[in-house]
Amino acid sequence: MATHTYGVIGMTCDHCVAAVTSEVSKIAGISEVVVDLSQATLTFTGEIPRETIADAVEEAGYELA
Amino acid sequence: MATHTYGVIGMTCDHCVAAVTSEVSKIAGISEVVVDLSQATLTFTGEIPRETIADAVEEAGYELA
Repeated sequence: MATHTYGVIGMTCDHCVAAVTSEVSKIAGISEVVVDLSQATLTFTGEIPRETIADAVEEAGYELA
Repeated sequence: MATHTYGVIGMTCDHCVAAVTSEVSKIAGISEVVVDLSQATLTFTGEIPRETIADAVEEAGYELA
């Protein structure tokens, strides 16, 4: 499966990274979730609709770029 | 008992506030713990040595100003 990367707006610290990682990791079929604070990115493997990713990121309190 | 206020360095988001509040609230004899993100302050009631407060804040990952 392909790896995808999205920008994430609003993360300021490692707690933010943990919150986004936790929520996004709950998505069925997703794997290799990596959230990078300095790059403000979320990278994952899996064919997941952008809307599903956006919902999880918003649930954590942030938003996709 | 008197209320005291210290500056806290490094808090950037509500998760940081929650982490500091949680650690400092564990201190025996402390009460009315309020952490303010925009002011970068920690306010509490109780006669607690500064070193004890500093240790709790550091445990959370931040430092007293």
